[in-house]
Order: sequence, then C-alpha cells, then structure tokens
Amino acid sequence: MGQTLTEKILDDHLVEGDLETGEEIGIEIDQVLTQDTTGTLVWLQFEALGLDEVQTELAAQYCDHQTYQFDFKNTDDHRFLRSAAGTFGAYYSRPGNGICHNVHKENFAAPGKTLLGSDSHTPTPGGLGQLAIGSGGLDVSVAMGGGAYYIEMPEVVNVHLEGELPEWATAKDIALHLLGELTVKGGVGKIFEYTGPGVESLTVPERTTITNLGTELGATSSIFPTDEKTKDWLSRIGREDDYVDLSPDEDAEYADQITVDLSELEPLIACPSMPDKVVPVSEVAGEDVEQVIIGSCTNGAYEDILPGAKMLKGRTVEKKTEMVVAPGSKQASEMLAREGWTAEMMAAGVNFSEATCGACIGIGHVPGSDSVSLRTFNRNFEGRSGIEDDNVYLCSPEVATAAAIAGEIVDPRDLADDLGDLEAPEFEMGSKYSEGMGQEDPDIIAPDEAVDDELIKGPNIGDVPLKDEMGSELSGPNLLKMEDNITTDHIIPATQDILMYRSNIPKLSEFTLSRVDEDFAQRALDSDGGFLVAGENYGQGSSREHAALCPMYLGVEGVLAQSFARIHKANLFNFGLIPLEIDASDYEQIEQGDDIEIVDDVADAVRSGQEEFTVRVNDEWELTATLDASERERRILADGGKLSHTKKQAEGGSDAAPADD
Amino acid sequence: MGQTLTEKILDDHLVEGDLETGEEIGIEIDQVLTQDTTGTLVWLQFEALGLDEVQTELAAQYCDHQTYQFDFKNTDDHRFLRSAAGTFGAYYSRPGNGICHNVHKENFAAPGKTLLGSDSHTPTPGGLGQLAIGSGGLDVSVAMGGGAYYIEMPEVVNVHLEGELPEWATAKDIALHLLGELTVKGGVGKIFEYTGPGVESLTVPERTTITNLGTELGATSSIFPTDEKTKDWLSRIGREDDYVDLSPDEDAEYADQITVDLSELEPLIACPSMPDKVVPVSEVAGEDVEQVIIGSCTNGAYEDILPGAKMLKGRTVEKKTEMVVAPGSKQASEMLAREGWTAEMMAAGVNFSEATCGACIGIGHVPGSDSVSLRTFNRNFEGRSGIEDDNVYLCSPEVATAAAIAGEIVDPRDLADDLGDLEAPEFEMGSKYSEGMGQEDPDIIAPDEAVDDELIKGPNIGDVPLKDEMGSELSGPNLLKMEDNITTDHIIPATQDILMYRSNIPKLSEFTLSRVDEDFAQRALDSDGGFLVAGENYGQGSSREHAALCPMYLGVEGVLAQSFARIHKANLFNFGLIPLEIDASDYEQIEQGDDIEIVDDVADAVRSGQEEFTVRVNDEWELTATLDASERERRILADGGKLSHTKKQAEGGSDAAPADD
Repeated sequence: MGQTLTEKILDDHLVEGDLETGEEIGIEIDQVLTQDTTGTLVWLQFEALGLDEVQTELAAQYCDHQTYQFDFKNTDDHRFLRSAAGTFGAYYSRPGNGICHNVHKENFAAPGKTLLGSDSHTPTPGGLGQLAIGSGGLDVSVAMGGGAYYIEMPEVVNVHLEGELPEWATAKDIALHLLGELTVKGGVGKIFEYTGPGVESLTVPERTTITNLGTELGATSSIFPTDEKTKDWLSRIGREDDYVDLSPDEDAEYADQITVDLSELEPLIACPSMPDKVVPVSEVAGEDVEQVIIGSCTNGAYEDILPGAKMLKGRTVEKKTEMVVAPGSKQASEMLAREGWTAEMMAAGVNFSEATCGACIGIGHVPGSDSVSLRTFNRNFEGRSGIEDDNVYLCSPEVATAAAIAGEIVDPRDLADDLGDLEAPEFEMGSKYSEGMGQEDPDIIAPDEAVDDELIKGPNIGDVPLKDEMGSELSGPNLLKMEDNITTDHIIPATQDILMYRSNIPKLSEFTLSRVDEDFAQRALDSDGGFLVAGENYGQGSSREHAALCPMYLGVEGVLAQSFARIHKANLFNFGLIPLEIDASDYEQIEQGDDIEIVDDVADAVRSGQEEFTVRVNDEWELTATLDASERERRILADGGKLSHTKKQAEGGSDAAPADD
Repeated sequence: MGQTLTEKILDDHLVEGDLETGEEIGIEIDQVLTQDTTGTLVWLQFEALGLDEVQTELAAQYCDHQTYQFDFKNTDDHRFLRSAAGTFGAYYSRPGNGICHNVHKENFAAPGKTLLGSDSHTPTPGGLGQLAIGSGGLDVSVAMGGGAYYIEMPEVVNVHLEGELPEWATAKDIALHLLGELTVKGGVGKIFEYTGPGVESLTVPERTTITNLGTELGATSSIFPTDEKTKDWLSRIGREDDYVDLSPDEDAEYADQITVDLSELEPLIACPSMPDKVVPVSEVAGEDVEQVIIGSCTNGAYEDILPGAKMLKGRTVEKKTEMVVAPGSKQASEMLAREGWTAEMMAAGVNFSEATCGACIGIGHVPGSDSVSLRTFNRNFEGRSGIEDDNVYLCSPEVATAAAIAGEIVDPRDLADDLGDLEAPEFEMGSKYSEGMGQEDPDIIAPDEAVDDELIKGPNIGDVPLKDEMGSELSGPNLLKMEDNITTDHIIPATQDILMYRSNIPKLSEFTLSRVDEDFAQRALDSDGGFLVAGENYGQGSSREHAALCPMYLGVEGVLAQSFARIHKANLFNFGLIPLEIDASDYEQIEQGDDIEIVDDVADAVRSGQEEFTVRVNDEWELTATLDASERERRILADGGKLSHTKKQAEGGSDAAPADD
C-alpha cells in the first residue's frame, strides 16, 4: 500500500510507535521555532533541564508579538531571548524583523523536514512541503534538548483541488471555504494533505496562506507536495538548494477526501466572531468599516500586500476608515519599499507599520467601540482584538482593500463595476533582494555570531519552578470548586497587563483563577497543597501551559473534574498535576474546603497503570476517581512533570541529550 | 526705537495691554493645534463652552502620541477627535500621519502668524518665522472660541549666530550647546530671537530643530527671521504663497544677547537625565548602547533622517543594538520611501516605525533594564522613557547613527577615522511629492470634507464638569495635608494605565493624589467640599490641567500652601479653586481633618481685589492667608473658573465668540 506524503515524512522521522491512526508515536524534530510570548518560558525550561546546547538541526527564536515594547518587561524579554539564543545555540531574529512563521518560511523552512513550534500557526510552511506542528513550550524545550515529540497519529485527510481560482477569489477564500464547510472543529486529530490539479495553479505564498489557516480547522497540520512552484519560490528567496521533490504515492490511502473546485469560489468573509462563520462578501456588503488591517502570518507576504497596493494606486483610503499595513516580515517590507509600493500606499493614506503580529491578539491597533474592523488575519474570536464585543471580519487583502476604498464592506467585483477602472490585481511573485547592500541579514543573529554567552535576566524574569517526584501520599483541601467549561483564559488571563508577566511565574501566579475567585491564589499559597474541583470540559481554549504551571507553583497537586479538555490535560501531566475524572453525583457532593485524600499509594499506583483511585473526603465518605493516561504520561506525572522527568532521564543517561523514554 | 521681530508680531496681534516686559498682554491667535493626549479635553471644554464653531483662522487636531492604539480608549479618543474636528470646523490629521509639530509645519505654519498649541513643543515653527506658544488646553479652547490669549510679556533675548557649522556638527548641537550654557531654566520668561550671519547658513529644518529645543530652555518661544531659505523651504513644500518677509528692525533693542560661533561647535550629547547635562560626545565614548531611536518632533524631518540613512548605506546596525526610525510625519516617510532610503535602512537593520512620537513619553519602545538608549528627542527626564532609572542620552541623528553602527557611543569623527570610508553626510533638502498619485492628502480631513457632524463619544469619554459661581461662604475639612514640592505627577500620575483616562474625568479623578494617599479621592468625594494643604512649591512639574480639574471634580474648593508653582497656580484659577498662601508656622499648626472656614464674604472679597483673608480653623484659632491674583484672574476665579467665566461672557455678549475680557 502506498504512503501519503505525511506518512513518508513521519516514517523518515519515527523513533517510536507505528503509524496507526490514534496510536502514540514519537518523532524526531529537525527544526524548532519559538516567539516572544511563549519563548521565554521555552528557554527557562531549557535552562531548568540543565542542558548546554540546542540538539536539533536548527532552532530559531523570533520577536514578533510584543515588538512595540510597551513595557520594559517586553524589551527585557527580547534581550533575554537574544541571550538565550546566543548561549544555547539558536538563531535570533530581532524585534521588527517579522513574524516567526513568515521569517522562518523565508529563511529556514525546508521541504521534508519536521518543525515543532510553540505557536499554534507553526503549520504555515506546510505550503512548501515541511511537516510543521504547533505545541506547548515544554515540548519545544524537550525537542530542542534532543527528545522526541510524542503525538497521537492523526488521520490523514486528502483535500483534492480542482480548477483554477476566478478573478477576485484568492487562496484565502479556499481556506475560508473549508472553514465554512468543516467548522473550527473539522480538523481535530487530522492532517490535511492537498493534492490534485488545482495545486499547481497555486504559488507557495498562496499555499502557506491555506496551511496557516488549517490551524483554525483544529488540524494538527496541513501540507502540500513540492513541485516547480516550490522550486521557483525557493530560488526567488535564494535557497534553491533546499528543494526536495515530495509527493504522496499514487496509491496512497487517505482516511477521507474533500474535493474543492477552485473555479466555483468567490470572495468570502468570516463574520464576527468565529473564523468558520463564513459567507459570501456580498451578503454583508454595506456595513460601515472603521478599520482595515492587512498583514499577519496569514497574509503578510510581499505577494499578499502587493494586490492591495495595486488597487490603491491612484486612489485613496476613505477618510472615515483607517488602514494599517503591518507586513509579515521586514523582507516583505523591504521588497515593497524597493519597488516603490510603500510610497504609493503611504500616499494613498495607509499607515505603514513595523512588521509585527501584535494587533491580532490585541497588542496595538485595538478597534474602537461599536466599530467594524476588517482584517486579513486568521482569528476573530470575541475580544481577541483587545476590546470586548468587537466586530472583526476576516477576509483576503483584496476584500480588505476594497473596504478601505469604499469605507464599507463591498464585494470587490461590485466595486470594480462601480469604479469602472479597477482591475483585479494579477498575482505576482517577488524576489528577495539578495544583494541588498552587500551585507548579510543584520536582523538575524546566527549562533556563531552570538553577542551573548550568558543569560541576561531582567528583574521580571524568574526561574521555572520544578516539582518534586510524586510521593506515596497525596492529600489537601479542595481549594476551589468550579463549574463546567472553565477555560485556560479563566485560569490565566491573557490581557496585556498580565501577559507581560509570562516570564515571571511567581508574579503571574498571583492572577491564577482570579476571574473565578480573586482570593484563590493567596489561599492556595497559604495552604500546604490541595486540589481543584471542576465540572465538565475543564481547561478548554488556548493551549497556554501557564494554566498548569501557575497552579503547580501555588502548590496545587491535582484536579478532580468531570472531564478535561485535551491539551490542558496534557499540560497537567507535563507539570505534574494529577488529572482525575469523577462522576456527576460525586462532583455535586464535594464542597469547597473539604479535605481530600487519595487513599492509594499514589506514586506506585500511577506508575503501575492503576486506573481507579479511591478518594476519601473529610474522612467521611469515599468516591472513585479515574486516571486515564498512557504509560509515558504516567511516568512523566510520577516524576513530578515533564521537566523533572526529562532532567532525571538526562542525568541518568550517558549524554546531555535526553531521549524522551 | 526699533522693534524686535517678536514685538512686531505681537504688536500686530495685540488686543490688550502694552508690550512692556512683565505686563499682562492679550493677543489674538490665528492658528491653534492640539494633539491626542491633550486634545480630547480641549474639545470637551470647547463643547462645555457651548460654542458652535472654531473662530480662529485655522485649528488642527493631530493624533500622534497614542498612534499604536494599545487600548480601545485610545482608538475611541481618535474617533472623538475626528468627530469634534468635523463638528466644530477644524482640520483632522489621522493617526499615523505624524507628529503635530511636524505635520503642522509642513501644512499650515506660516510666517508672521500666531499659533497656540496644547503641547509644550508648539514653538517649533518659530524656525520659519511663526510666533508659536504652548499652553494649557483650556487656553486653546478659549482661543478657538475667539478669545484672546493672555501672557506676561516676556523678555526678548537675542541669540546672535556667527560662522558656519563644521563637519559632523549639526543644528541639534547648536541647541544642545545653548542648553549646556543656559540650563533648563535659562529661558524662563523669555523669547529667543535668532539673528546674525550664521542664520543664513541654516535651513528651515535645522532652524525648527533649534526652536523646538527652545522649550527645554524653559523659553516661552523661539523665533527666526525669514529669508531666501524660508522661501525655498515653503516652495519645496508647495506653499510659497505663505512666504512673508520678516526681520527685526536694525535698531531693535533686546533684553540680552548671547553669541554663538557655529564654527566652534562639535558633536554634543545630553547625558541622563536632563537635557542640559551636555558634554562633547567624546567624553562619554565607549558606553555600550542597546537602543537607538531617530525621530520625534525635534529630528523627525526627511532632512533629519537622511544623514543617518546615508551613513548606513553599505553598513549594518551592530547586532546587539536595536535601531528604530520613527519619522516625524508620513510625508517624511513617503519622501524617504520614494527615494529608496527606506529600503536601504531596512536592509541595514533598522526597524522602521509608523510616524509617532509615542516613544518619547514611554508609549512604545521602552528601553530595557540597565541599558543605554540614544535618542534624537528633546527630553530625557528620568523615567520619561517608560522605565525608572533609565539611561537616555539626547543627540543628533549623526551621533545616534554612529552609535548604532559601532554598538557604543562614539564621536562620529572618530568613527569616520576608524572606518576610513565614512563621509560626513552633506545636509540635503527634500521636496514634497506634491503630485503624489494625483490625489489630495488623504490623511488630513479638511473642515469641508468632514465625515462627522456630531460628537462620537465612546464609553470612556465623559463630559467636563463645570463649577458654579463662587458664593459668599467657603468652608470644609482639610482633606489632605501634604509636604513641600508636590508635583503634578503626584496629583495626577501620567503612566499609561492612567493616561488612557484623560478623557474621562470621573474615572481619572479616582487616581487623584493616589501616590500621596490612596484613600484621598474617595474621602474627597464623600465630603461636601474641602481644602488641600501643602508646603512649598505645590504643583511643580508638568503643566497638565487635570491636576486642577480632578480635585475640582472631587469637590475641592481651594488649596492652602506655603507657595505655588506658577503654571499650576494659573490652572487653579482656571478651574475655580482658590489658591491661598499661608506662612510656615500656620502650615505647621493646621492638621489633616481640621475644619477650615474662610470668614470673609469670599466672592465679594475675591472680586474686589482683597489680598488678605481670614481663615478660621476648627472654630478655635485664625490665620491670615494671601490671595495673589490679577484682576482678570480674580474674575475667572469668582465666576467658577475659566470655563464658566468664558461661558458667562459669551452668554452675556452679542455673539458666540467670547473675548476674554
């Protein structure tokens, strides 16, 4: 039986398990990337592991979310990241040099390699045949230390593209079409592999827009085969040597197939406040628009911004509408500037920003009250833009620019009819000015050019707490009883005033669960250990590992819940908190403040594979709680979390590179 | 006797008083400007005055400090400002279009006209013969309503320039030289008028760098005569018709004369943390530099940035140093982009920002801990950059760029010697691309293009409280007893988390004096009126009028202090709080919580010119307090502050334009 492209790459990197859907596999990671809001913890954990040097072929640290440096803590974070990259042997990309996914794509992403990144849009370079997966920061730290990355083998689903895009429809519309069809849960546990005659009509920048948005489907990754278009793009970027010919076998078997006829697509738009609320643009035409932003990791390439620039030539942004262009990389900015397009856009009324992705998560250019913002970004979750009750629409650069010209949402085909002289911009590829002014890229510091050889920690940068090995007894009070659907945003809020403490776990921990009970953190600190109790779906939402790390710092030993969200449960294992499932009637009966004691020899039971645990409450009654965990997860938990576990392995082993199990 | 240029312009605009040094004069204002952190209050006050339309020849509203729009409140402020400009007849400049002083200079500043602005660097266009003065927001509101602007006639001091600048010395060094010689208090109560053969060697952009920095001398304004250089600049900017020939009479008499021989100047630098701590650059050479920023209202013109761009051609920014260029206006950005310099700077490692002045007051690009930042700005007060204990140096773009190349402070002459091929960049004038793409400037909305005809107030934008006319009785508790040297920063802190409430007086008032006593605001609100008691020099520091307005909102009726800082005392009159001077022994005796009663018929006494007031404390003992106020200030105070006063006059008069006495 033939292999899918995904299986071929996984096969090349497999260090444990079999490629059976649903089975846990361990794969070798070739490249890792981190950014500034998750990267500080990645490096603090790398340090805590006691490792000296990056073991992957390549590691790259980007500064892209907090580039405006609103607070000295942001600037200190960047300096720490530079020092960590220098000390441990990673590439460092300076703030203002662009978004991790874009800069990585331009400089390092390579067909056939595996990439693990502490950012959910890491799958972006799937558009040039790289198998790229987003994960929590600790997984990245461990991978950088040479450990394998473990994952349940996803289903591989074939997306078969036919035909060619008509005028005014773009790669963004392909992705939006899939979101509309499959919803934001449609890709969970899946990798989407693109094939078919439609593929060759798409350039690499168009393909990466699609793979980037695969994250919004909930997919583990998305990938395209390589071909002449890939080779052409790599050559324009000065990296033709990285080309590898990659495609699935003719007789590859897929778990499912979805067919999209590109010729039937039209300009689409995702309405507030979910990326899958997709409708044709014409359905929401006429809505006044106060803000338009072009950029982000989804549509921040030279090739993404150029169509908007062409549409604006000889025209102006409507007076009531503010239009910001924030390129995905400085390379894109430089190409636009060198070709004269930056000056043209400025003359048309565009506010041209430094290369940053901040606005996507509410860091800068927050929309005004009761206003509509059109963005070429990938997410429009309610409040993500920085204001509650926002009205953020997601669309292509062409649709966004049309709205900037008209001051309202408009199907660009209708705008073209109205204006008479507006042509659909041809998709045009750019080339890097590799000669530049003769110099090397000054914005990327290679490991052999490092300016630091020790960590520089500003006063806001603390150490990562380590947890001791699990003992035989586990008891303590029920510190907080919560309802269903507690999100990681409840556990650790992401607002700017809190976000800047991501490198300072003691300080960040003060905000733990403050949205549920503002006295919680102090109560947990004052207590000698204890538990959390919750209803269904505990820990849903963002993957942030701080939602496990901060409770761990406060002394929480475990969580008793009716059910757990998948990623958060993995994070609980990673930080040594035991996640126990309880049934509804026991949940009802247990009260905040009750004394909880796990009767079994806990460490022994966890290691031995025991599933049912007896929990004694107030020394009065008992309930049965279930631990659903793989053998690997049990070892991590019993060792006190993945940091302690990995460290223990490394110390026990013969070299500094821990192989996880 | 001949007249100085200052006297000529004042004579042309005099509506009250005589041009005798120290005498109060009233002058007609031709143009006003406001920016986004002071402008919202200017317009709320204009609204509170009940006026319909701007009465000055021109009013312009800029958005330049909060252009990153970190919070929806910033964005809402910008929208409110747009709606106010549209409703009342002012020009509106969009966020990202540049800094008020730069954009005003390019578009509206005109020789011989008077300009009043709610920003301390308003004197900038003095470089092209405009008499421009900074003031509190309420004075701007009143001037926009057609009222005169009152000021004590300053001394006119002649700065006689001889010779020409040598290589690597710049206009910035002329201003820094004066700061070193005269200190930050050297210009208080003065207007500096530049003459001499050295003037003709300086272009308008160089002259405006000097007049801009006159503010740091404490000067009321600074002004240059007009000449061929002025005409040339106006013609490059497309406004040659605005040229007027202006110079002092041959036999003009000045209060003082200072001579500067330009040929003796060398590259200078102001050390942390005061603009007058000036030394030759060579004295501090070798200091590691982590951040370099070129831009601001001082050095943000095309002509200011070009030398740095030329120095970077074929070179790169040192890896350990971050270099940000934030042009003063989008016009400067566009000129740099069109000439190819933006691409060259990006290739050299520069992070190219939108046009904003935020970093100067700690809004973005805050330096890291224990690091050195070199900036071409005008102020380096401790903590102003956004971090306490900062190390900010002020210098020319040439010195800043040299540091970016070397990674440390270096005299550019020494760097040129070291490198061998670094030429001193010739000063080169740019021209606006007036043809652009054929369109009008899309970033300035003229009154006749307004997109709003009513005020748009987001949820954070409140009304300005008005105070009732003063009654005959005034009594209440001593709400807070303070020590000497309380600053306006103590009264209303300026940090970002508080700054965003500048348009919301009820909310902002919650922070009143919180740095002295966090319970103060609630105590004042709960009390039915009351007083503040302070030692010497109450209200020193920034001119922010919120430091009088917020206590007024909380019900404070007056301040008893040993002495007052000049500007804050004027603000107390403007907001209807009686400033009474008391002696040291009475200050010692009075306690917080004591009942205070002014025994006289207060309104009558204030209006009639009475200087000594009897104050009864706890019905037990009496002290004598002094009111030192002009007749005009007494009328304002008795009417309940300048807003109520001006409104009353307007209602009593025959048209909507109040003439302030």
